Amino acid sequence: MAAAAQPALIGLDWGTSSLRGYLLSMDGSVLAAVTRPWGIQHLPAGGFPEAFTAVTGAWRSRDPALPVVAAGMVGSRQGWREVPYVECPADAAAIAHGMVPFAAEVGLIRLVPGVIQRNPLPNVLRGEETQIMGALTGEPGLVDDSLIVLPGTHSKWVTIRSGRITSFDTYMTGELFAILRDHSLLGRPAREAADDHADAATKAAAFQRGIALALESGPAGVGSRLFTARSLYLTGELRPEVTLDYLSGLIVGEEVRGALAARRGESLPPLALIGDPGLCVKYHQALTACGVADARLLGDSAAAGIQQIALAAGLFPAGACDRPAASGGG
Amino acid sequence: MAAAAQPALIGLDWGTSSLRGYLLSMDGSVLAAVTRPWGIQHLPAGGFPEAFTAVTGAWRSRDPALPVVAAGMVGSRQGWREVPYVECPADAAAIAHGMVPFAAEVGLIRLVPGVIQRNPLPNVLRGEETQIMGALTGEPGLVDDSLIVLPGTHSKWVTIRSGRITSFDTYMTGELFAILRDHSLLGRPAREAADDHADAATKAAAFQRGIALALESGPAGVGSRLFTARSLYLTGELRPEVTLDYLSGLIVGEEVRGALAARRGESLPPLALIGDPGLCVKYHQALTACGVADARLLGDSAAAGIQQIALAAGLFPAGACDRPAASGGG
Repeated sequence: MAAAAQPALIGLDWGTSSLRGYLLSMDGSVLAAVTRPWGIQHLPAGGFPEAFTAVTGAWRSRDPALPVVAAGMVGSRQGWREVPYVECPADAAAIAHGMVPFAAEVGLIRLVPGVIQRNPLPNVLRGEETQIMGALTGEPGLVDDSLIVLPGTHSKWVTIRSGRITSFDTYMTGELFAILRDHSLLGRPAREAADDHADAATKAAAFQRGIALALESGPAGVGSRLFTARSLYLTGELRPEVTLDYLSGLIVGEEVRGALAARRGESLPPLALIGDPGLCVKYHQALTACGVADARLLGDSAAAGIQQIALAAGLFPAGACDRPAASGGG
Repeated sequence: MAAAAQPALIGLDWGTSSLRGYLLSMDGSVLAAVTRPWGIQHLPAGGFPEAFTAVTGAWRSRDPALPVVAAGMVGSRQGWREVPYVECPADAAAIAHGMVPFAAEVGLIRLVPGVIQRNPLPNVLRGEETQIMGALTGEPGLVDDSLIVLPGTHSKWVTIRSGRITSFDTYMTGELFAILRDHSLLGRPAREAADDHADAATKAAAFQRGIALALESGPAGVGSRLFTARSLYLTGELRPEVTLDYLSGLIVGEEVRGALAARRGESLPPLALIGDPGLCVKYHQALTACGVADARLLGDSAAAGIQQIALAAGLFPAGACDRPAASGGG
């Protein structure tokens, strides 16, 4: 095994709904990976220590000196230990500098801070900073000037300048969709439909129809159109089993419409999507419908981000990173 | 007692959350009124018949021949008996013509239909048609050309031309606020605040602040601003006990902003607000912030609307309505 492919770091991407553990080499190659449904709000019996040990125990028993870096909501007020945000603009060095070593009973963990923007309105992110730093490593074309979109429960639209997070917006699209689906009148037909008989093409068409209507709403916003997810169903123009696909199109479309409207008059920098592949494809469709067809679809970049932040923090032996990277062992 | 002040009609305004019964004279004077929390989703044991009898029994035993007209969600698919919508444009005569006599076991009830708009997008209302017909009776200045706003769970913006409902929009603002308050991250600080210590002025200021931010968002819409109800709280710039007032300002502001943006370039007709007085005052504030300061605040007009629809349906003895109206006894 080449030196660069030896374990050098344990990375944890520990969010609200899941925990991903990575055994990483010095060059960021993933030597082993574990995913558990133990987000900070879904911990196993035994809580944080138990989840930590279950995921990292075998790696750490073989190599007790491996540094551990954890990013995401584990460092939030609801997490294991709260880590203060670092201020915008923030690059990998600033994020590394803001890491807090936390001496848990089960070992030392370096917690990655989130990023806070103060002006013009306060805004925060936590976990996305790591994804972004990973993405910038693999995509040099995004470093100087780009717009990185991370769709999800709270979608983030992050402006990058010279490798730094300079500003960002939050859209609560994923959360809004979930509560409309689960608690509003709009979700009722789908909740009551005994089975979901719609095929993928029908569902995709309903999603596209929602996007189109959101875009058509223009500066008035989608506010007066949300109710069409019910009225089209009442008039037989929308099948109950695709009402949620249509609703998803409406609110994803409104996010993309609004985000581009907020940048009207500016030239749009290169745009990239990071996150769940299925969700990124939907955002790509919405962007394309808005005339932005060249957004890059990037895969999950948390492991690469953790490696970059560890590197910036000097967690690897001096000089080690000057070696040419070996091909990944994972 | 003057003839016009004698009981001539029983009117029921029977919505999702409450049941209001009115004993009406021929000229629409309210001789007696009863309110019960027996909306169609909150019926007492015994269901519709029990609620109906409890509210109207005494009036009907004194005068068994009184016609009964019921408006609102009682005529919906989830109600006592479904009544088909009448088509837009609709005036009092069309609504009266669409009434369905329903021979319930406890008596004959005439159910008022809702109104459906087919183009450009389907939309429905039920109950508001009655409020509107009542308002038009008392406000002749609104009959020819007006915009009537009925804030609520599903706010309606209704265009009136020549006494007819010609088109309308629905904003799910009240429902959206309720599910955000009860189920989203934004509602958590207020849900966790043990007590609400904010005084009325502080709450009003937070509401106005939300309106201002919604308007400032302009054509991009409020999407990227919703999260400020959390981020301003996280940074100590918004007290937890007023986060909901601020959120209410954001989403009411977005409704008003969007509705006016949809009418940009048109001259705005006289505008009136019907509904809960506290809520109408909030909408008046949002309209004023948008530069529309002259909206009329109208009271509840369901009883007057039921009287007008009954009149159009010929439910009163011929010639009786030519008598000059006596002053109301209620």
